Amino acid sequence: MKKREKVTIYDISKKLNISAATVSRALNDNPKISKKTKELVAKTAAEMNYKQNRLALALKKGRTNNVGIIVPYIDRSFFSSVIRGIEEELTPHGYHVIIAQSHEEVANEMEQINALLNTQIDGIFMSVSKTTQSADHIQKVLDEKVPLVFFDRKIEVKGVSSVVLDDFKGGFMATSHLIREGCKRIAHLSGDVNLEIYRNRYEGYKAALKEHKIPFNPSYVLQTSSKIESGAQAVEDLWQLEEKPDAIFAAGDYAALGAIQELKNRKINIPQEVSVVGFSNEPFTKYLESPMTSVDQTPHLMGKIAAQVFLEQVNESQNYSIEKKVVLDPELFVRDSSNRTTLNLQNAAI
Amino acid sequence: MKKREKVTIYDISKKLNISAATVSRALNDNPKISKKTKELVAKTAAEMNYKQNRLALALKKGRTNNVGIIVPYIDRSFFSSVIRGIEEELTPHGYHVIIAQSHEEVANEMEQINALLNTQIDGIFMSVSKTTQSADHIQKVLDEKVPLVFFDRKIEVKGVSSVVLDDFKGGFMATSHLIREGCKRIAHLSGDVNLEIYRNRYEGYKAALKEHKIPFNPSYVLQTSSKIESGAQAVEDLWQLEEKPDAIFAAGDYAALGAIQELKNRKINIPQEVSVVGFSNEPFTKYLESPMTSVDQTPHLMGKIAAQVFLEQVNESQNYSIEKKVVLDPELFVRDSSNRTTLNLQNAAI
Repeated sequence: MKKREKVTIYDISKKLNISAATVSRALNDNPKISKKTKELVAKTAAEMNYKQNRLALALKKGRTNNVGIIVPYIDRSFFSSVIRGIEEELTPHGYHVIIAQSHEEVANEMEQINALLNTQIDGIFMSVSKTTQSADHIQKVLDEKVPLVFFDRKIEVKGVSSVVLDDFKGGFMATSHLIREGCKRIAHLSGDVNLEIYRNRYEGYKAALKEHKIPFNPSYVLQTSSKIESGAQAVEDLWQLEEKPDAIFAAGDYAALGAIQELKNRKINIPQEVSVVGFSNEPFTKYLESPMTSVDQTPHLMGKIAAQVFLEQVNESQNYSIEKKVVLDPELFVRDSSNRTTLNLQNAAI
Repeated sequence: MKKREKVTIYDISKKLNISAATVSRALNDNPKISKKTKELVAKTAAEMNYKQNRLALALKKGRTNNVGIIVPYIDRSFFSSVIRGIEEELTPHGYHVIIAQSHEEVANEMEQINALLNTQIDGIFMSVSKTTQSADHIQKVLDEKVPLVFFDRKIEVKGVSSVVLDDFKGGFMATSHLIREGCKRIAHLSGDVNLEIYRNRYEGYKAALKEHKIPFNPSYVLQTSSKIESGAQAVEDLWQLEEKPDAIFAAGDYAALGAIQELKNRKINIPQEVSVVGFSNEPFTKYLESPMTSVDQTPHLMGKIAAQVFLEQVNESQNYSIEKKVVLDPELFVRDSSNRTTLNLQNAAI
C-alpha cells in the first residue's frame, strides 16, 4: 500500500490556475460560480482522485454526527453496559459512538480529549479517571462549545450535566442488609477515596452503622484498588486483628472476589462465618461457587439517560442553558455470599 | 450551553476584507504573507475566538495520529485485551486509539468505517462481524489509502495484512486433550460457522478425532451462539440422544459456561462424567466452582503484533507494498473441568 497523499483543493487550484476559494465554492455548488467552472472543477477533481472529505464539510457545518465516550477502561461490564445504553439511545438519531480509554491516568484523559476534539466531535460523554483532580483539560471541551455529559464519575464543573448513581445509598443499602443478616463487625474495602463515588459508598457504610448503633471501627476500613489481589491482601491484613470481622462490604466486585478467594484459602465459611457484599454487579458475580451479593448500578439505564441529557443539550435554544444533575437509585441483588437468613431457614427445615 | 457556532476563516476574511486564502496563509505562517498582515489576522482571529482546528491542519497534512479499532463488541475480555495490546504498542509512537463496536452487524460496521474515515483516521484495525460476507465496505478503506489490519476475524481482501490465531490448532489441541483424558464421545458446540475462526476450530476438532481413530458423529455437533443460554440449550438437545456425550468442546467460553450450568442442573459430575473445554480463556473461567479448561488466544500479543504490522505499513516506502499474514499459536490452559487424570490420581492416593 502506498503512503496516503491527499489531493487538496490547492492542488486543483494550481492545476486549473484558478483560486482555491473558487475551487472550494465550485465543489460546494455555490451559486456565484458558473456552471462551466463547476463542471471543470468536478471533472478535474475526479481525475486527480480528490475526495471531498465529509469531514471538511463537517468542519464548515460544525457537525460530524460522531460522539465520543471516554472511560477509565472498557473491560469492566459496568462501563461497556453504559456505552451500550448510550449507543442504543443515540443510534436512532444518526449518531456514531467512538470510545477511548484513559486507563485511569489523567494524562491519557487529556490526550484522548484532544484526539476527540480534533476529530470535530459533536459531544463527549465522560467518566473521569482516578487521577483526575482538576478540571483544566475539561475546560477545553467547554471552550470549544462541545456538549459534555459526565456519567458515574464526575468532577464539579459549572454548567456540566451529569448522570450518576446514588452511591451513598448503595453503601447504605449494602451495609444495612449485612446488619439485618445479623452481622456486627462489618469491614469495608473502600476503593480509592480520591474518587467521589468511593467516598460516598464509604459514607453510606458509616451512616448505616450509625443508624443501627453499631460503633464505627476505623481498623475495619481498608483502602483497596479494584484488583482481585488487593481484596485478598485486605483479608490478610484484617485477619491480623484481634477481633476478626464477620462481614465484608467491598466498594468493588473484584476486591470482593479477592476477599472471597482468600477467605476460602483460610477455610472460612461464606456466608455463615463471614458474609461478603460487592459493588457493581459484574456478570461473574453470578457464576461463583457462592454467587455474590452486589449493588447494581443500573449502567444500561445510566447510559440511556446520559444520552437523553445530551440530546436535550444539543436541541436547546441559544437563549438559555441547562445543567442537569440526574441521580439514579441503586439496586441490591442478594445472593448466597451474604444470605444467612435463608440458609438458616433451610437448615431449620431439614 | 449555547449551540456551537464555529468562527471560520471566511468570517475573518469578511471582517478584514481580505481573501480567505490570505487569512489561511497568514494563520499557517506562509512566507508570502507580510508580517503586518499576519499580526492583524492573528489579532482578529483571537478577538473573534477563532480556533484553528488541529483537524483542519490534519486535513492538509493528511495525519491526525488517531487510529480506529472496530470490534464486534468491547465487553469480551478477548477484544479488550487485543485493544490493550495495540494501545501499548502505538502510544509510544504518538498515536491515539479510538474504538467502535459493530455489535456483529455488517450495517453497523459500514457506518463505523464511514464515521472513522470521516475523522480522517490514520489507520484501522478490524475484527469483522459475524454478518460480514462481502468486502465492499472494506474496499472503501483501501480506496482512501488508509492502512488496514485485520485481527482474529478476517475476510479475504487482497493486499490487507492480518494477525490471527491458528484456530485449527486450537480445536485440535482441545479435542486431543479430551481424548487423552479418556473421553470417547466428544460433542462440539461449534459457534457460527459463517465465521472462518469457528470453521477452523471445528475442522481441528474433526482432525483430532480422525487422528485418534474416533468415528465422527454429526449428531454430536451443534451450532451455538456465544451466549450462555445457547450452551445450556445444546446440553438439553444432546441429552435427548440415545448415547450421551462424555465430553463437550465448545468453540466459546460462554457456551461452555451454559453447558456447565445445565450439566449441574442435571446433577452430572464434571469432569468425571462429562468433561468440558471452552475457548478464549475469558477471566471468569478461573473463578468457576470447577475452573474451566480453555484455549487461550494470546490476545495481548495479537494486539501488539497487529500494531507492529501497522507501523511497518505506515513507514514503508512508496515503491512496494507489504501484505503480511501472521498466525499465532494457541495455548491450552488445563483446569478442573476436564482434568480427569489428576483427579483419578488424587482419588487413588486417598
